Amino acid sequence: MRTRPLKVALLGCGVVGSEVARIMTTHADDLAARIGAPVELAGVAVRRPSKVREGIDPALVTTDATALVERGDIDVVIEVIGGIEPARTLITTAFEHGTSVVSANKALLAQDGPALHAAAERHGRDLYYEAAVAGAIPLVRPLRESLAGDKVNRVLGIVNGTTNFILDRMDTSGAGYSEALDEATALGYAEADPTADVEGFDAAAKAAILAGIAFHTRVGIGEVHREGITEVTAADIASARRMGCTVKLLAICERAADGRSVTARVHPAMIPLSHPLASVREAYNAVFVEAEAAGQLMFYGPGAGGSPTASAVLGDLVAVCRNKLGETTGPGESAYTRLPVSPMGEVVTRYHISLDVADKPGVLAQVATVFAESGVSIDTVRQQSRQDPDGEASLVVVTHRAPDAALSGTVEALRKLDTVRGVASIMRVEGE
Amino acid sequence: MRTRPLKVALLGCGVVGSEVARIMTTHADDLAARIGAPVELAGVAVRRPSKVREGIDPALVTTDATALVERGDIDVVIEVIGGIEPARTLITTAFEHGTSVVSANKALLAQDGPALHAAAERHGRDLYYEAAVAGAIPLVRPLRESLAGDKVNRVLGIVNGTTNFILDRMDTSGAGYSEALDEATALGYAEADPTADVEGFDAAAKAAILAGIAFHTRVGIGEVHREGITEVTAADIASARRMGCTVKLLAICERAADGRSVTARVHPAMIPLSHPLASVREAYNAVFVEAEAAGQLMFYGPGAGGSPTASAVLGDLVAVCRNKLGETTGPGESAYTRLPVSPMGEVVTRYHISLDVADKPGVLAQVATVFAESGVSIDTVRQQSRQDPDGEASLVVVTHRAPDAALSGTVEALRKLDTVRGVASIMRVEGE
Repeated sequence: MRTRPLKVALLGCGVVGSEVARIMTTHADDLAARIGAPVELAGVAVRRPSKVREGIDPALVTTDATALVERGDIDVVIEVIGGIEPARTLITTAFEHGTSVVSANKALLAQDGPALHAAAERHGRDLYYEAAVAGAIPLVRPLRESLAGDKVNRVLGIVNGTTNFILDRMDTSGAGYSEALDEATALGYAEADPTADVEGFDAAAKAAILAGIAFHTRVGIGEVHREGITEVTAADIASARRMGCTVKLLAICERAADGRSVTARVHPAMIPLSHPLASVREAYNAVFVEAEAAGQLMFYGPGAGGSPTASAVLGDLVAVCRNKLGETTGPGESAYTRLPVSPMGEVVTRYHISLDVADKPGVLAQVATVFAESGVSIDTVRQQSRQDPDGEASLVVVTHRAPDAALSGTVEALRKLDTVRGVASIMRVEGE
Repeated sequence: MRTRPLKVALLGCGVVGSEVARIMTTHADDLAARIGAPVELAGVAVRRPSKVREGIDPALVTTDATALVERGDIDVVIEVIGGIEPARTLITTAFEHGTSVVSANKALLAQDGPALHAAAERHGRDLYYEAAVAGAIPLVRPLRESLAGDKVNRVLGIVNGTTNFILDRMDTSGAGYSEALDEATALGYAEADPTADVEGFDAAAKAAILAGIAFHTRVGIGEVHREGITEVTAADIASARRMGCTVKLLAICERAADGRSVTARVHPAMIPLSHPLASVREAYNAVFVEAEAAGQLMFYGPGAGGSPTASAVLGDLVAVCRNKLGETTGPGESAYTRLPVSPMGEVVTRYHISLDVADKPGVLAQVATVFAESGVSIDTVRQQSRQDPDGEASLVVVTHRAPDAALSGTVEALRKLDTVRGVASIMRVEGE
């Protein structure tokens, strides 16, 4: 074994960074044995240097991240700051100084992955980011390497723990969205500003990364159709139950049937209770991968949290250090298929539509005609008189598979019917 | 991209080999793009050359595997023959000729892994074997690489599809073992001689491989405690149901509580219906991994079959070819912890014991005394008079956690009691 240590600069020392530092210290011997050389924490860049950080030598702490990255003796930079800047500039600077990078930064990877990969390649260095998608769950490496000899057709997953916690609570307790969000916040599963999670931005970033890796192409964050969970109601969850389903926020990346394009989307959807993703509870993540030869694979585990994310970061650190010692690099960006990303209108799936309609004869015939004229085939209809003073009834329609654009057209036409008082909810049905 | 192709020799062209050859042909462009050079099937060694093999150029087929491996221009050997010889000699010869190897051979890896790894290292070549454990499910790579910065404490999995199919059928239909085995054979899930599967040899080989990788040590196949499923009865399954459990053949690799030794075992066990492994149906495989930082991860998918196994083989082929082009090798054997393997007697778990006892007062007190004297604490007891002419009753005891040796001692003492007519079954309870 080499005795001269590899030097690691840690950028960020929050929930994840402090766990990375802790494990690097407590498990130093194991890491050295697995890498073939000791690794040394050579510097820790933080925003608030006065904060006491247990187990970290205060002499290593600096507020000047740029100077740390430019020091010249750093072998690997671990970036766990998050956000676009200064992370992007620091990573680029690291590559320019011949330093490989391990990052947990999904927002940055989703936005600037291609440019960062190009910088890494230009300087002959590694960019690893297992921790950016689904925390500790090995997903980037299995997709990039284990399935490198296969053709992935579909990735379907729960990749955001906060929203899964909220939907799970709504499902088990019958609570409304706000009530479940409050509980998630109180328990630390949701941040004070939960926008990134509940509006699906976090899941969309992961979907962009996963789609790119799975289909060997580039999927921009703006090409991911995104709907959050803020409009999911207790009534939607109850409706799902009646159909033998539950509601999950899913990230879905698909290759089109003709193989010539791909789609990526994030939205709440009903999935059958018999589907393995239906039983993913609380803040856990799980991702289904369908590949031509391998068939259906599932990867399950904690999708966030300091320790699980640190596990993923350190797995990458070992790989990058081994590459460094072997004077090689791991797999870089693979985007050779250049498959275009189709818009949401071309996605084909099933729909569950709840309508408030006038409670009188002939309404079902009118509604059915609209569906027929839009070319959307109906699977089941359930009509329920509410016997309320407004003379309204509920009509629940579940369709066969149809393009999203056709469904949008149908809904537009339905809204114009006098007998349709309102469209209470539209939700896609997946996982069948 | 390099234009000169990498040459691949395929040893064996059965269910897996023919799929490997087919995908190498149909997906040649994708493989070339991912590797950075084309790969060419340079020879296929078979036993029966006269058999027609669709899509394979007959000029490539040979019965002389040794000559193929010794040809001198082969970059990678794919070994899908199975069994110990001639696979072992061929793989060793390949290394001696500077050729890397991808193997799907669990029996050989479990028996001779250390020697083969040493030969690969001596000659600076790769030995990859993702397909040897759980078919298409990425497991070897996640354990060797993704979790390289973590400490795995437990691996608990269903790693044999045949036995899972049989136990699943017994559970869903109430069938006995023989009946379920017949169905598995008729459907092609069990071989004509099912010994390797139903007696747990196949699962034990996988447990040895997994334990070695997970704990960075060596676990010999002879150090894996092995019990098959041939003695599992419909009554055991019914008993499990009454406890809210199901019966699965599990491979369990554990680090001892003091961290100073490991155990590896394969046996049928009751697991709660709420445990994710309980819902693994038919011939699917699934493996739980518990790591210190990552927490609980699960990997699920098809554990066998031509296409899924070929997917794993080809993923390894891409990695080995990339290593070859980069003039490097991937991670070799990591056995630096040299943790000893403890015998089964030291395994601590819970037990479900069914006794046939005399239907008279005082029996429970006698039985409870035997448990107490052996230091095995009882969790629950269920006594059921059968009102049969023999005057027998059933007594079902579920224990708290106790060492296997203490339980064996208890059972021996129970057998000596006049009032105990027989020990109907003993089964471990896991996954709680």
